[in-house]
This record gives sequence, C-alpha cells and structure tokens, in this order.
Amino acid sequence: MVVPSQVERVLKAAKKLGYRLDPVAASLRTGRSRLVGILVPDIATSVFTPILAGATERLSSAGYSVLVAYVGNDSERQRELASGLVARRVDGLIVATASREDPLVTFCIEEELPIVLVNRTEKTLRVSAVASDELLGMQLAVNHLCLLGHCKIGHLAGPPEHSTGFLRRQGFKQALSLHSISASRAPIQNAGTYTREEGASATRRLLDQHPELTAIVAANDLLALGAYDVLRERGLECPKDISIVGHNDMPLVDLVHPPLTTIRISHREMGWMAADILQQALDGGGSTLRNVVLPPELVIRSSTSSPISEADRKTVRAAPGKTGMLRPARQV
Amino acid sequence: MVVPSQVERVLKAAKKLGYRLDPVAASLRTGRSRLVGILVPDIATSVFTPILAGATERLSSAGYSVLVAYVGNDSERQRELASGLVARRVDGLIVATASREDPLVTFCIEEELPIVLVNRTEKTLRVSAVASDELLGMQLAVNHLCLLGHCKIGHLAGPPEHSTGFLRRQGFKQALSLHSISASRAPIQNAGTYTREEGASATRRLLDQHPELTAIVAANDLLALGAYDVLRERGLECPKDISIVGHNDMPLVDLVHPPLTTIRISHREMGWMAADILQQALDGGGSTLRNVVLPPELVIRSSTSSPISEADRKTVRAAPGKTGMLRPARQV
Repeated sequence: MVVPSQVERVLKAAKKLGYRLDPVAASLRTGRSRLVGILVPDIATSVFTPILAGATERLSSAGYSVLVAYVGNDSERQRELASGLVARRVDGLIVATASREDPLVTFCIEEELPIVLVNRTEKTLRVSAVASDELLGMQLAVNHLCLLGHCKIGHLAGPPEHSTGFLRRQGFKQALSLHSISASRAPIQNAGTYTREEGASATRRLLDQHPELTAIVAANDLLALGAYDVLRERGLECPKDISIVGHNDMPLVDLVHPPLTTIRISHREMGWMAADILQQALDGGGSTLRNVVLPPELVIRSSTSSPISEADRKTVRAAPGKTGMLRPARQV
Repeated sequence: MVVPSQVERVLKAAKKLGYRLDPVAASLRTGRSRLVGILVPDIATSVFTPILAGATERLSSAGYSVLVAYVGNDSERQRELASGLVARRVDGLIVATASREDPLVTFCIEEELPIVLVNRTEKTLRVSAVASDELLGMQLAVNHLCLLGHCKIGHLAGPPEHSTGFLRRQGFKQALSLHSISASRAPIQNAGTYTREEGASATRRLLDQHPELTAIVAANDLLALGAYDVLRERGLECPKDISIVGHNDMPLVDLVHPPLTTIRISHREMGWMAADILQQALDGGGSTLRNVVLPPELVIRSSTSSPISEADRKTVRAAPGKTGMLRPARQV
C-alpha cells in the first residue's frame, strides 16, 4: 500500500529531477486527455471567431487544451474528423457546424462522447445546445420595419439545412402574420451560403421578381452587405429606396455605409456557455440535457427608415445598364 | 523476422475486426503525434483568422491535426502553454505571437521543437519565418500620400515590441526621408494594442498635438477605423480634411465609410506557407532556415485624396465641444 506522504515525497523528488506529468501517458491510464475538440465551419467568418475565442477562454482557464478543426458541410468528412478526434482521446466536442439532423450527433451519442452544440442546433434536442432565440430575433427585425411603415418586406434566407437559416425563415413568416401581412407580399430568396456574394445574387433575384419591396430582412450580416452591393450597382439608396436589416451584429457593421441596423447576438457569451456546459459534463456533472436560448437584441442604426411614397420610388427603381430576365418592362 | 506480406495480412485482419490505428499509443512508439500547435494572440481579430484558416487547411490535408492556443502577450504564460503543447507531443509549432526577442523561440530551439513564425518575426532570424515586407508596405502608403500632395503626415504606430509595429514605424520614417520630409513634420503616436479604441486615443493625441496634419498612416486597419471615429467626433471629414491609410486590408474595410485605402497583406497565403515550411521540416526536410517575405500591395479606395488648401482647413479643424489640452487657442 502506498501512503499519501510517500506519494508526495516521490512527486517532490520527481519534480526535482525535472520530471513532469506526461498527459499522453496519463491519458492512457486515466482515459482522460483534458483535450476538447471544437468543430467550426471552414469559412472563417467573424461570427465563429468570437464563439471560438469565448469557448477557448473558458476551457483554457479550466486547464483544457482546445483542438480546433475547420470543417466543411460534408457530413462524411465531418465524421472522419470526429473519429480522428476521438482517436486522439478528446474528452468532448463543441460543435458549431450542426445541421438540423446531424449524423455527427448520432455518432457522438453512439460513442458516448460528450458534445455541446453551439449557434446551430438540431431539429430535436438530443444533446445540449446553446443558441440564439432565432424566432424572437426575426420578430424584432420585422416589428421594427412594420413600425416604420413598411408592408412590402422581402427576406434573404440562409441555408435551410442549418437551424439559423431554417428558424429565421420561420420567424420571418410568423412575425409577418402577426402583422397581418400575407405571404405574397413577403417573398423569400434563399442564399446557398452565408457570404456577401451569395447575399448579392439572392438580392438580385429578389428585386428582379419583386421591384415593389421597400425593405429586406437578411438572415445574416454578410447577406445584408451583399444586398448593399446590389443596391449600389443598381443606383438605389439605402435606406431611402430600400431599408435593410442584418443579423448577428458582426464587427464593423457599425462602420459600413450606411451603418447597419441588425440583430445582435452574443457570440462570445455563447462560446462561454457551451464551454461551461461541456466542462460540467466532463467533470462528473452527469448528463442533464441543457437547452440554452439566448435573447438577441435589436440594434437600430441608419440602414432603416420609413418608406418613401410609391410615386417617388418608381423612377428610382430602374437599374441602369442591367438586364434582369424577370424585371418589369418599365426599365429605362 | 516479419515479412511485409504478413504485416499486410495482419493489418487487413485487424481492420476487419474494427481495429484502427491509435494515434496516442502510436505517438508513444514513434515519438510523432501528427499534431501541430498554433499560437495566436488572444484578441480575435480578422487578421489572424485567415492565417489560422490557411495554415489549418494545409496541415489538415497533409494529415496533421491542429491544436490552436489563444495566448496573451505574457511570455511566461506563453512558455507554459508551449510546455503543455510539448507535453502533448506536438510535432511542431506555428507562432503568430512572436515578439522581437521571444523567449518562446529560445525555448523551442533548446527543446529542438520545430517552429515557424508567421506575420510577426524576431529581430534576428533564428528560426524560419513568413511575414509581409513591412518596409515596402509603408513605402507604398507614404508614396501614395506624397503623390497626392501631402507633406504633413502622421503615423499611428503599433506596439514596438512586435515586428509589425516596429518595422512599419521604421518604414514610415524611411519612406518620408526618401521624400525629404523631416521627422518634425511627421509625428508618431504609439497605440498600445491593435484595437479600434487604442487607434482612437492615439489619434486624439496626434491631432491635439499636430492639428496641421493632412494625412495619417495607420499601422493597422483597426487603428485606422479608430481614427475614423475621432474624425467623426470632431466634425472632420475623411478624406477632405484628413486622408487616412490603413494596413492589412481586413474584410469589410471596402464597405466602411469612406472605403479605406490600405495595404493588402495575403494572410491566408502566409498561413499556407508557414504550414508548408513546418511540414517540410517535420517530414524529414532537414532544418534549412527559411525567411519568406511576401510583397504587400496598395489598395486605393476613397479615404485618401489631395489635401485642401491651408486657408480652408483652419475653420474646419475646430473640434466643437471638445477640449484638447494641447490644442491651439483658435478653437471655436
């Protein structure tokens, strides 16, 4: 039998000789690595940086190291990466890449690997998750526009396979019906990915088909900035001709022209909370399912105003030098 | 003796039974983990995200996993983190946090741990590094302003303990002397960190002491955006009253108002190259010292123009409602 004082003496002597705890060897014995994997989408956007930073801050101070994997949307590749992380004995995963029915979540449940979803959630709550209240976010955006007097509002939707795209789209529809605006007056265009370029092409389609719109609610700030690009190329002014609302309040959107009205989400806080939940699960806290929904906030800047009169708009609406297949004949 | 065909048969059988290579156990045997650590400054700026993404892309496709550590500027803590990474048997490090004389580099040399510096370099080349040509960058910025007719140019310098701050400051001075502009006409203010807030306070000091300036060269885009904030609070216009040049061409500075003239650095490419150099070193490529200096590029947008006449400027210069300790008496 080894008594505690002997252990202490041995450790002291070992330390003197320059020995340190070898986490790799220790993990073979304890089965714990104090390593956490974080899966982040491969496009390095400003949204995921604060989530990553928040989670890493919390985990580092709790003595965990963080293994970050940038992954695409291919679920086979995601599972491969996750297997690799499991093989490296990560204690758990924080996943910012979840689709609404994610095979990776199934894999983690089967492997009994603790996992917390962040920002994007599944259709049904199978594992703990931290996300923004997407329905409320869209309600704030639509209420703001309706109060300004808009009733012809379009939506640039995000990818429907992610909860952010899906729920914001749903939130948009719900909010409009609360204001008794029919779906036909509220067209939706999908952006394939959350990029400025995809935002621009979705905006082109939206305005080609619906030149009567006076406002656009984007599912994400980058999509909104893509809409800015299209207004500029068509000689339209924001907010005079079209008001625009973004989503996320990513860094610098207060400095773009015009400063973007948007829905603020606390991404860093999201990272903190996901890390805390995972850490509790790892430090013996059982497996209580947690579903944290953070309230977003409307930030009003200068990209939204009351709509101008119908008569004034029509002359402005023309897109000089652009040919849109579906644009009405009154182009000049 | 084990013959190759036997090895193959055993592996095949093992695979059939569901066995996979355990990288942790394997690393104990081979001493190789195929893990690379990347040290990134703790402030999650848009600059480090593309470096990280670039390095991770390359390393992942070469079969390495990446352990990212967000670290502060405290060198003791940095060494602790690095020890932790060494203990986890990282094969090598990519370091984006180097100071000009970095104890961490000494530590890695002593531990014989392959290391590549990225973006920030040391005073003397002790290990391989990939960075931008900082002197050329500042020359491009200053030349552009001088060609527009500016000769009273100030500099918002970055932290002098980092090569970016130090060399851009040096580049600024060199470029001005090439244009025969004396140092007294080219004042410099240090920003403690690369943030919009620090950029704003350095700009306040710069303009309080030197209201005659017609242009500012910032060592970083965030510092330039801080200068934008101060111009706005003082009722000054950019570029009419003061031209501003940034550095980095981070995402969205083309959309701020006015769109920022800046020096473009290929951060993603920097990440790729650092990863390639490290990988070559790890895959038995010896220890040739590499010093890669990437050429930056001037991107002219709308924050720079020719200076307006002296007479016009003086009335504009006043800062309504602001009291600057060192501001001249002609304030209104």
